[in-house]
Amino acid sequence: MTRPALTLDPDRALPAEPTVRAIARELLAGTQDLPLVSMHGHVDVDLLLADEPFRDPAELLVVPDHYLLRLLVSQGVSLDALGVPRRDGGAVERDPREIWRQVASRWHVLRGTPTRFWLEHELVDVLGVTVRPSAQTADETYDQMAEALAKPQTRPRALFERFQLELLATTDDATAPLDAHAALEHAGLPGRVVPTFRPDALLDAAAPGWGQRVARLDELTGVRVRDARTLVEALAVRRGHFVERGALATDHGMRTLRAERLDDHEADALVVAALRAAEAGRALDAPQADALAGHLLFEMARTSCEDGLVMQLHPGVLRGYDTQVDALRGPDVGYDIPVATDFVHGLRPLLEAFGHHPRFRLVVFTVDEDAYSRELAPLAGVYPAMRLGAPWWFLDTPDSMRRFREAVTDTAGFYNTTGFVDDTRAFCSIPARHDLARRVDAGFLARLVAEHRLDLDEAHETAVDLAYRLPLASYQRPI
Amino acid sequence: MTRPALTLDPDRALPAEPTVRAIARELLAGTQDLPLVSMHGHVDVDLLLADEPFRDPAELLVVPDHYLLRLLVSQGVSLDALGVPRRDGGAVERDPREIWRQVASRWHVLRGTPTRFWLEHELVDVLGVTVRPSAQTADETYDQMAEALAKPQTRPRALFERFQLELLATTDDATAPLDAHAALEHAGLPGRVVPTFRPDALLDAAAPGWGQRVARLDELTGVRVRDARTLVEALAVRRGHFVERGALATDHGMRTLRAERLDDHEADALVVAALRAAEAGRALDAPQADALAGHLLFEMARTSCEDGLVMQLHPGVLRGYDTQVDALRGPDVGYDIPVATDFVHGLRPLLEAFGHHPRFRLVVFTVDEDAYSRELAPLAGVYPAMRLGAPWWFLDTPDSMRRFREAVTDTAGFYNTTGFVDDTRAFCSIPARHDLARRVDAGFLARLVAEHRLDLDEAHETAVDLAYRLPLASYQRPI
Amino acid sequence: MTRPALTLDPDRALPAEPTVRAIARELLAGTQDLPLVSMHGHVDVDLLLADEPFRDPAELLVVPDHYLLRLLVSQGVSLDALGVPRRDGGAVERDPREIWRQVASRWHVLRGTPTRFWLEHELVDVLGVTVRPSAQTADETYDQMAEALAKPQTRPRALFERFQLELLATTDDATAPLDAHAALEHAGLPGRVVPTFRPDALLDAAAPGWGQRVARLDELTGVRVRDARTLVEALAVRRGHFVERGALATDHGMRTLRAERLDDHEADALVVAALRAAEAGRALDAPQADALAGHLLFEMARTSCEDGLVMQLHPGVLRGYDTQVDALRGPDVGYDIPVATDFVHGLRPLLEAFGHHPRFRLVVFTVDEDAYSRELAPLAGVYPAMRLGAPWWFLDTPDSMRRFREAVTDTAGFYNTTGFVDDTRAFCSIPARHDLARRVDAGFLARLVAEHRLDLDEAHETAVDLAYRLPLASYQRPI
Repeated sequence: MTRPALTLDPDRALPAEPTVRAIARELLAGTQDLPLVSMHGHVDVDLLLADEPFRDPAELLVVPDHYLLRLLVSQGVSLDALGVPRRDGGAVERDPREIWRQVASRWHVLRGTPTRFWLEHELVDVLGVTVRPSAQTADETYDQMAEALAKPQTRPRALFERFQLELLATTDDATAPLDAHAALEHAGLPGRVVPTFRPDALLDAAAPGWGQRVARLDELTGVRVRDARTLVEALAVRRGHFVERGALATDHGMRTLRAERLDDHEADALVVAALRAAEAGRALDAPQADALAGHLLFEMARTSCEDGLVMQLHPGVLRGYDTQVDALRGPDVGYDIPVATDFVHGLRPLLEAFGHHPRFRLVVFTVDEDAYSRELAPLAGVYPAMRLGAPWWFLDTPDSMRRFREAVTDTAGFYNTTGFVDDTRAFCSIPARHDLARRVDAGFLARLVAEHRLDLDEAHETAVDLAYRLPLASYQRPI
Repeated sequence: MTRPALTLDPDRALPAEPTVRAIARELLAGTQDLPLVSMHGHVDVDLLLADEPFRDPAELLVVPDHYLLRLLVSQGVSLDALGVPRRDGGAVERDPREIWRQVASRWHVLRGTPTRFWLEHELVDVLGVTVRPSAQTADETYDQMAEALAKPQTRPRALFERFQLELLATTDDATAPLDAHAALEHAGLPGRVVPTFRPDALLDAAAPGWGQRVARLDELTGVRVRDARTLVEALAVRRGHFVERGALATDHGMRTLRAERLDDHEADALVVAALRAAEAGRALDAPQADALAGHLLFEMARTSCEDGLVMQLHPGVLRGYDTQVDALRGPDVGYDIPVATDFVHGLRPLLEAFGHHPRFRLVVFTVDEDAYSRELAPLAGVYPAMRLGAPWWFLDTPDSMRRFREAVTDTAGFYNTTGFVDDTRAFCSIPARHDLARRVDAGFLARLVAEHRLDLDEAHETAVDLAYRLPLASYQRPI
Repeated sequence: MTRPALTLDPDRALPAEPTVRAIARELLAGTQDLPLVSMHGHVDVDLLLADEPFRDPAELLVVPDHYLLRLLVSQGVSLDALGVPRRDGGAVERDPREIWRQVASRWHVLRGTPTRFWLEHELVDVLGVTVRPSAQTADETYDQMAEALAKPQTRPRALFERFQLELLATTDDATAPLDAHAALEHAGLPGRVVPTFRPDALLDAAAPGWGQRVARLDELTGVRVRDARTLVEALAVRRGHFVERGALATDHGMRTLRAERLDDHEADALVVAALRAAEAGRALDAPQADALAGHLLFEMARTSCEDGLVMQLHPGVLRGYDTQVDALRGPDVGYDIPVATDFVHGLRPLLEAFGHHPRFRLVVFTVDEDAYSRELAPLAGVYPAMRLGAPWWFLDTPDSMRRFREAVTDTAGFYNTTGFVDDTRAFCSIPARHDLARRVDAGFLARLVAEHRLDLDEAHETAVDLAYRLPLASYQRPI
């Protein structure tokens, strides 16, 4: 059997055609050393505060990475064998070397996927791996990684500096205390770490535990929530706390894309009903809860016009598709599935009300690429408040990023997109993801130049804008 | 700052790969000088009748171009600043130089868009501009354009001749008198200008003013409309008038794609109800109006089998998405948004009834490219009456035209498409649009040749067919 | 007029860019001589049993090929002129030479279609045609084909051997006796011919003749069907018979993608109602029949866990779109049209119940490519039981196969797809279809190699897997 070296080719993910590749290389040279702006991360801020070494390769690369987990599961590996905890306390694999063997021996399953592209980047660049993972090299590669993890330069803060993270946003529950963020301000990091206000659990009155969360909100804000108005008021207080801690944005996921104001009486009645249901140990039914969530999302947009927090929408994912897996393992183990989303009607009330507001900024993400040219580019191509986020999640891939530019640029141009925004809880994959996006954008721009659809000087400027300036500008609070 | 020249590269929008490009160049050489057939235009026929010089660059290029307006608005420029009239009489910018400065200084916003591609073509080829527009060159480029517009060779009829327009269709309300068309027949133009029968405003009984339009129809035709039968009869009279003036086609937009005959009683009852509502100053509600419109569209197809007018359908656009903008500015200022369309069920009654009729020709356009391979190519690939129109509106772009051929040719071939059909009210952009389409088709055909999927002699013939013969043949009245 | 030669270029359907093409050639060299695994065919097994010469070129190439028929019909040729039988006994063309003239004289209509690609392959490779078909060469090419068909090496079994068919699956009604399959086991073919269990006509109680088919099922199995349980029991008996004859899979088409268990009482009641309706000469209404079909499909999946038959789903096609054509000609004459399909909700009950079952294998096909990246790749990329079938029917084309890999590989990799599965009733087109798929996959893999996204040794292995090993493994009964 072969034992091929693992290396990163300097031309990886650039177009093959020599003329286009030469231009792409040149464009990439102009963006490759730019700092990283990571505005939609899910890194645990305590990781940076504690700054302890990563425990082992499995904990670092496998167990928390639902992209990787799902591909291994699809080939018959159980989540138990991959060390994913069970809620019933049942035994799961605890030996990180065994977990890594599962991955290494199925390396072929990852062929052609971005997961492999990112992993290779991390293995080579951060973890000093020199041979391609396989059944035979599983232990060798494990040992190389373990050795690397023992060194001080792979500690979180050292990596933060090495990654050139200029700005890292975390995602935080609306009732999160943000103490770690406060503490981190004095830790001397070379870049900022800011929280993001994510109130999903408070906007969705059908979610279990909504009542307790509202009670916690009362406690934290001193506002007694008794109707829709006071709920919005309490949320605004928390938003203010986030702004004080440096937050630039809010983030919203939802069962159904809906952002429509109810009349006050109706909204209040739904909150009252939800509070009563919570007291009785029940929850609002889904249609009522969706109506209320739509009202509250609308109000969050209104509040954004006041406090300047950029509103991010991440609709169109059916979370916990498999109820048995969900019950046993909880969320984020690979069983979220995209669904078709109607952005045209779903966003209409929001855009009609705030789409021209000078202090409102709406960033919309999708996992449904069918909406790119039909809905999202036409909307972002006219409403000044709206920007298209980068291809998200299942679409954060070389070919899909290219398709995004090909489908969206015609109607929305480059400047109604946010540039690259990553979305990961895998800290070490952040540079790999930005690197890939910069390569794909360089390739796309290079083709435009080669086809005489864009001048080279403009392509250079656009490449820097997409990699760095637009992500920064798109999340700049206007007030 | 740089001050780059503005030129048109002879290879623009051709594929970058040298072998493919060489073939594409050769194919393009065979189509570049063919006359233009422009079968779905929105040029004002009075423009050609009056033949006065265009007033200024802003009036020519900016104010009427909703593609350009929307991109500038998306970056925070107001429609006021772009000189778009308000219905409330409020002040808008009137200095064309100021309006052009708004455009020139945001030239980067247009990067990668077809709008820029077309504009560059017009600027260089028609308006003698020699430097790339920018904040610094705004005045210089304005002056170059103003100078060009003062010359006799930029008058409408001179351009008509220079553009090699062999056939130009306008779009006309069903009650339009068509006097200008009649007058133009004797104007000595080197090509034909024909009207197109667009009865939307009479088919949609929910539209404001429907009653008055029916009254006008009565008056023009001498048919007293009192039920569905007489309404269709009156429309047929008007169609006859259009045919006399040279019309080749009808054109139809709609809220919902529906073309289904009602029974006579039901249809008559709806017309009676609509007339009564109109008398009372009201309108039919949307579901009733849609049912009636579906019936009338079906009857228009039947009438086409008699008078040979080609039926064009343009469904799937939500017009006036933003009600406030719509109220203040009216239509065609950039706020129309595509929606998903079900062609399979929507077209079924029409195709079952007339899809094999030897004198029926149906041309279907879409702004929803998701339907290309799933619905439109399979339908056009079997029904002899149906042809696929060119990629429309938001899809009239280099990459989308290429995707159209890639998605549609497999199942429908080339000869169930109409070849290129432009859709613009910007007279000067017509050659640019045809030029771009010819380039994209040359590139697509060249790839097939390079991949040995098509012989070169066939590609040559197909290129000419797509550029010229098919548009002409697709709109040939069979009777 | 020209009279060009008809040849097969060795580089046909490979990417044009020289570096990528060179790699693709190398990959193709590794798959070009592999045997064919044809797991979803519709070849009539009696053809191989009788082993008589094909009668004439029209019977071989035109009359049974609905891909070709529809393209000719779309250009105004009638099904009568193409020799397609009428149910009303009306006259249709019987002279095969005349039928071929219709095709040859419209050869340009096929430009750019896979139908032409396949036909060229058959004409050159099997039928010895040396000039491109056209009006002028119609008779010459007809004579060449007729001559070839008279030779022993074009008899079905000789071709079977020459095609290197290792495994050929037919599609068979659930009540088919399978005697021909039994007889063929002793015919000394160099490969296996196995039946596939297709129970659509028994699962859909709204289909005409359902009652008679159930009676036949009673008779064949000795199980008296009187409720849902006994219906499933009888179907299981038939499945057992198919397994004995070597069957590896079941195959299912449906009006609506639904696979949801009803409670026993409800399911039984529906069967009782269906039996009563059948006795009274009626049929169950569509919603009830769909509910019952969904229940039965679910039960078929459960039975698969027991007998190991791989379940194939082919949803999303509206059969017999044109009711008049359907009444006159019956099915499979080109009037089936794809419709949008919701795989996410449609497959959910099945995947939740059996998606992790070690003995369940589900192969899902689609004619709606919009679902690739949004629904199908995410589902196949996590459920171990699920594999994505090859691009099906309207999508079995060079560009669509490429788009499939581009859209699916990111999220599902290569190893959650089945590799190439053809779907044809045109025996002679089988090698052409596999050849094309191997070329397209070689081209896709070559691009990944050229872009340094995959190592060359891995691409070689993957190419062989997609062409041969995965189709074989995907249909291996696990028990």
